[in-house]
Amino acid sequence: MHNIELKGWEIVRFKEGTASRLNEEVAEEFPFTVMVNGEEFATMVCSPSHLHDLLVGFLASEGIIRFYDEMKQIQIDADVGFAYIELTKPINADQHDHSKRFIGSCCGKSRQFYFKSDVKTAKTINSKLMITVDQCFALMEKLQIQSEQFIRTGGVHNAALANRDELLAVRTDIGRHNTLDKIYGHILKERVRLTDKLIVFSGRISSEVLLKISKIGAGVLISKSAPTDLALKLASDLGITVIGFARGNKMNVYTHPHRIIEANR
Amino acid sequence: MHNIELKGWEIVRFKEGTASRLNEEVAEEFPFTVMVNGEEFATMVCSPSHLHDLLVGFLASEGIIRFYDEMKQIQIDADVGFAYIELTKPINADQHDHSKRFIGSCCGKSRQFYFKSDVKTAKTINSKLMITVDQCFALMEKLQIQSEQFIRTGGVHNAALANRDELLAVRTDIGRHNTLDKIYGHILKERVRLTDKLIVFSGRISSEVLLKISKIGAGVLISKSAPTDLALKLASDLGITVIGFARGNKMNVYTHPHRIIEANR
Repeated sequence: MHNIELKGWEIVRFKEGTASRLNEEVAEEFPFTVMVNGEEFATMVCSPSHLHDLLVGFLASEGIIRFYDEMKQIQIDADVGFAYIELTKPINADQHDHSKRFIGSCCGKSRQFYFKSDVKTAKTINSKLMITVDQCFALMEKLQIQSEQFIRTGGVHNAALANRDELLAVRTDIGRHNTLDKIYGHILKERVRLTDKLIVFSGRISSEVLLKISKIGAGVLISKSAPTDLALKLASDLGITVIGFARGNKMNVYTHPHRIIEANR
Repeated sequence: MHNIELKGWEIVRFKEGTASRLNEEVAEEFPFTVMVNGEEFATMVCSPSHLHDLLVGFLASEGIIRFYDEMKQIQIDADVGFAYIELTKPINADQHDHSKRFIGSCCGKSRQFYFKSDVKTAKTINSKLMITVDQCFALMEKLQIQSEQFIRTGGVHNAALANRDELLAVRTDIGRHNTLDKIYGHILKERVRLTDKLIVFSGRISSEVLLKISKIGAGVLISKSAPTDLALKLASDLGITVIGFARGNKMNVYTHPHRIIEANR
């Protein structure tokens, strides 16, 4: 349903002492090169769905754009995995430096935002959103139901833009961060107001994930996975409610529990 | 046991209709800046254990060093999260370019190795290692037993260097790739011969993970998680046996099953 392509692969499965040959589905990993103003900016790997959203969210996450109309042309050639973006202005030296120094993603390598431009772009969130525990559980359950792909291939993550009652947009990717960039791109493109919105997410909450939530401008993040201490310190500073380990009818509220209605009783 | 520090965090837990305040352990996320020949090379985030191994493996993964003795000085200041490396020679322009263009890690952003220097450094593996299905299951079980941390915090990954019977070194990190870099650093430092060794891993097998295995020089990778199609194409080309979804007494062999003894019957 999210246009993720699965690829067949011949495997040998060993199970309880027997071997069988079968065709197994695996998640596609797609190299995607982003050219900005005629120069190579970055190559990422991703799931080849919602490439337009990914591109927009990625450039916003990297600090290259802040609004959708800062791009005057977007051309995506999905056959060869290239995107060509023309900005309304040149990339300035700061942004160049930023892109050069940023060498990372979720699993280790990451910018040291404490000393970099992220500190400037990360926003303190003043969302007045209030939500009940049951609404949180229901949103996570909806995301799980949409995660059929993950169950089949074990290889993808999901993120959703939601209001208290519904998932409004779900994005899937082999990369945790890409799911959030796809959501971010959708938000910028559609000019979604974030005041009554939250993000529901399948992945671990690292500092980089938390900073993306801050840039997106959501006041609440619900994940089924664990946060790190650095992500929690940032969430605490930036006014974001972090809910982790949301599974079944259990969840942990790590920061700013005042947005959870039952926590105020 | 792997010197991963856990940090206490005050949370509100909602479970089956009741709220409780408690102190939960979360995994530490540690920014670590690497200076090479007096210049800032990269900042990563990691778990602050085995920083020396991580540093060496990271520089080798990035193509900055190939052997341990290409570094004449290594100084780590763990209090401030900085490492200072003096190489026996300058970083050449190619390596500079490489570092600038590499902006990625597991969860999306990654170098497009198909067109880059990785193709040169990735080695085809001719390992003669043979292993039984039960040996694979036993190794994965040993890794799981060592993964106490993961069970407690839900936030870390593990990688191990192993022979057919034993885990020889286990490394833990919040970052998938860091666990492998720590193993790689250990291998280079101790000059471990890889001919009869394999890698046991908790994480997903992306193209970048597979390329690390190739650089390390291991012929067999066992993971409890899923591979992507691109990782499998590379494994197929590079002669690496990829085993995924190794859980309990079940596993999938995706590539080069000839190293699995039972697959030859």
